[in-house]
Amino acid sequence: MKITCQKTDLVKGVNIVKNAIPVRTTVEIQKCILIDASADTITFTANDLEIGIETVVTGEILERGIIALDAAEFSKYVGLLPDNEITIETDSRNEAKIMFNPANPGDCFTLLGKSGESFTKIPEIKKNEPIVISQFTFKNIIKQTIFSVADNENNKLMTGELLDIKDNKLKVVALDGHRVSIRNVDLKDQTNNANVIIPKKTLTKITNIINGTAEDNLFIYPNENDIVFEFDNTIVNSRIIAGEFFQVERMLSDNYETKVKINRKDMLEVIKRASAIVHEGDKKPIIVNIENDVMTISISSNISSFTNSIEIVKEGKDIMIGFNPKFIREVIENIDDEEISLYLLNAKSPCFIRDDSGSYVYIILPVNFNNPGAN
Amino acid sequence: MKITCQKTDLVKGVNIVKNAIPVRTTVEIQKCILIDASADTITFTANDLEIGIETVVTGEILERGIIALDAAEFSKYVGLLPDNEITIETDSRNEAKIMFNPANPGDCFTLLGKSGESFTKIPEIKKNEPIVISQFTFKNIIKQTIFSVADNENNKLMTGELLDIKDNKLKVVALDGHRVSIRNVDLKDQTNNANVIIPKKTLTKITNIINGTAEDNLFIYPNENDIVFEFDNTIVNSRIIAGEFFQVERMLSDNYETKVKINRKDMLEVIKRASAIVHEGDKKPIIVNIENDVMTISISSNISSFTNSIEIVKEGKDIMIGFNPKFIREVIENIDDEEISLYLLNAKSPCFIRDDSGSYVYIILPVNFNNPGAN
Repeated sequence: MKITCQKTDLVKGVNIVKNAIPVRTTVEIQKCILIDASADTITFTANDLEIGIETVVTGEILERGIIALDAAEFSKYVGLLPDNEITIETDSRNEAKIMFNPANPGDCFTLLGKSGESFTKIPEIKKNEPIVISQFTFKNIIKQTIFSVADNENNKLMTGELLDIKDNKLKVVALDGHRVSIRNVDLKDQTNNANVIIPKKTLTKITNIINGTAEDNLFIYPNENDIVFEFDNTIVNSRIIAGEFFQVERMLSDNYETKVKINRKDMLEVIKRASAIVHEGDKKPIIVNIENDVMTISISSNISSFTNSIEIVKEGKDIMIGFNPKFIREVIENIDDEEISLYLLNAKSPCFIRDDSGSYVYIILPVNFNNPGAN
Repeated sequence: MKITCQKTDLVKGVNIVKNAIPVRTTVEIQKCILIDASADTITFTANDLEIGIETVVTGEILERGIIALDAAEFSKYVGLLPDNEITIETDSRNEAKIMFNPANPGDCFTLLGKSGESFTKIPEIKKNEPIVISQFTFKNIIKQTIFSVADNENNKLMTGELLDIKDNKLKVVALDGHRVSIRNVDLKDQTNNANVIIPKKTLTKITNIINGTAEDNLFIYPNENDIVFEFDNTIVNSRIIAGEFFQVERMLSDNYETKVKINRKDMLEVIKRASAIVHEGDKKPIIVNIENDVMTISISSNISSFTNSIEIVKEGKDIMIGFNPKFIREVIENIDDEEISLYLLNAKSPCFIRDDSGSYVYIILPVNFNNPGAN
């Protein structure tokens, strides 16, 4: 194999497929990037069998061939190359020579690779009807919900996020047993219905890779056992999580006794201050006391305490309720609105944070707190 | 105690003295910042008995007093305060109330502190003749040498850096048995001679704190058993390392067989590339081959290799010599000149990198390498 590419194109290709290199594995070939110049295009592929990424790299094929190179090494070298035309040439021992100075072919890295025969290429895309969504929107709605995916693997279904398409509306849902995050968007193009649970890891990687502009689209092909994302010159193939997702509609409720309108930034600032009182392993809740036109947030530890009041617009009853401060913070951080609305029923019932247009619903379960004054 | 300060002044004070809070200690009081408003100024102090830092904080004393507050907690709260006038008030139980909303004193943090009686204040400065040096110069010469201080504690003298003042010239020296870094500067003011070894930790902390402008001076007071640095409204007191430093003059030599002039940035780039081949725990040297007007740098591992040539201007003999790439890199990174000169005698003798004006001398010991071609 002998190919030439610009350094910037090499770097781009490596940085994209590197996302499918497992942090730890005993399978040597999974640590490799496959450079495939056996046909008419140069493609880079990485595949840990949970997620596979393939991208087309701009360049010229001088001699067809294929090689697998250790991703960590190759990526390190590529990042340090000068901004030149780079030539990669392999020999019969699968040693790749990476020449970076057109005026002096002696200036080079060499790296012993593998034949690439044991490399698992990612399957061909089944070109059924795609879901089409702007990269910007997709990146946003994932970022705005993914924090609610469960950290542990106790419940497999909670380790992924639901993508649910019905009547040209896309709903994404993430939940971990303590909270639910839902985002809804209208799709522009006519799309088949679909309902698929995608691992958190896959979504994280994709939002890392896509550039997130509103003009560029992401094409999603859900299959029976896997899902394919296509964008720019890249495809990502991922396993999906089998099973039926939780019935989120049943968790929703319009019933409330207290509605609070509050400035989002003010509340976020206060929650951040309150979080400073929490120490690792501590399960101290913040206590939110809503009384007339004031929300007072307080929290205490063995050695310290915090109290801060914020003006609100309240409808309905006064209420005192406790929350895990992290859960409140993550929701408020992921809303763009200047003002948010909280809907509360009582100290044991979930708090809803939602907008009038239905573009988001966040549900947070309260926690018990010692309240000497309450009954 | 009751004091008021602007948030920014509080943050500044905390960030300065925090440098003397030990990462790990079982002595509770050493984890604290002492707020002393017992006289006419507000001072913050931290002291782990190796290094003590005291700074004056702008503010108003409404009621004299003193308190010691856990630095980690206090610093966390202070960083999250709004940009207001802050009032800190203590009660008889040594609980500090940090009020951050002049319109509502209920908005506050509380933090249980200590009386401060067991706190070791740093000693008064003995106002002998100071060494006066611009903060900019001091910060630079320390940064340009401190990387050569030994990492381990095997030889106590090597864990610090020598400050040697003779005839109004300041020489700083750091060495670790494999390399020596020397920087020389002329002092503007008439100064007593001095010769003192300062722990690396102290120098690191001071270069962190000083702003590094050319207009602002640093005043250094060397004493018999400790040293005091004074700048802006801050004093740093540090233990010194006892003993007589190595006779550096004896290591210097003007004797060479090869002199090489090379573009510093070009060489740095090539050394960085070469370093990519080195893996942790590896002791692979880079091999520097000087032949006619070309320096060829090469290195190899079990799976990879690297070769890169650079144009040079050479005087004297050709030579092939091996180095630890990290040692070469750190020297080249810390020189500002566009061109540098290397002076070499033979493959077993140290390499000197120095300028004509004598403002710096770097000495690097070579390492053995397998060179099938050499005899």
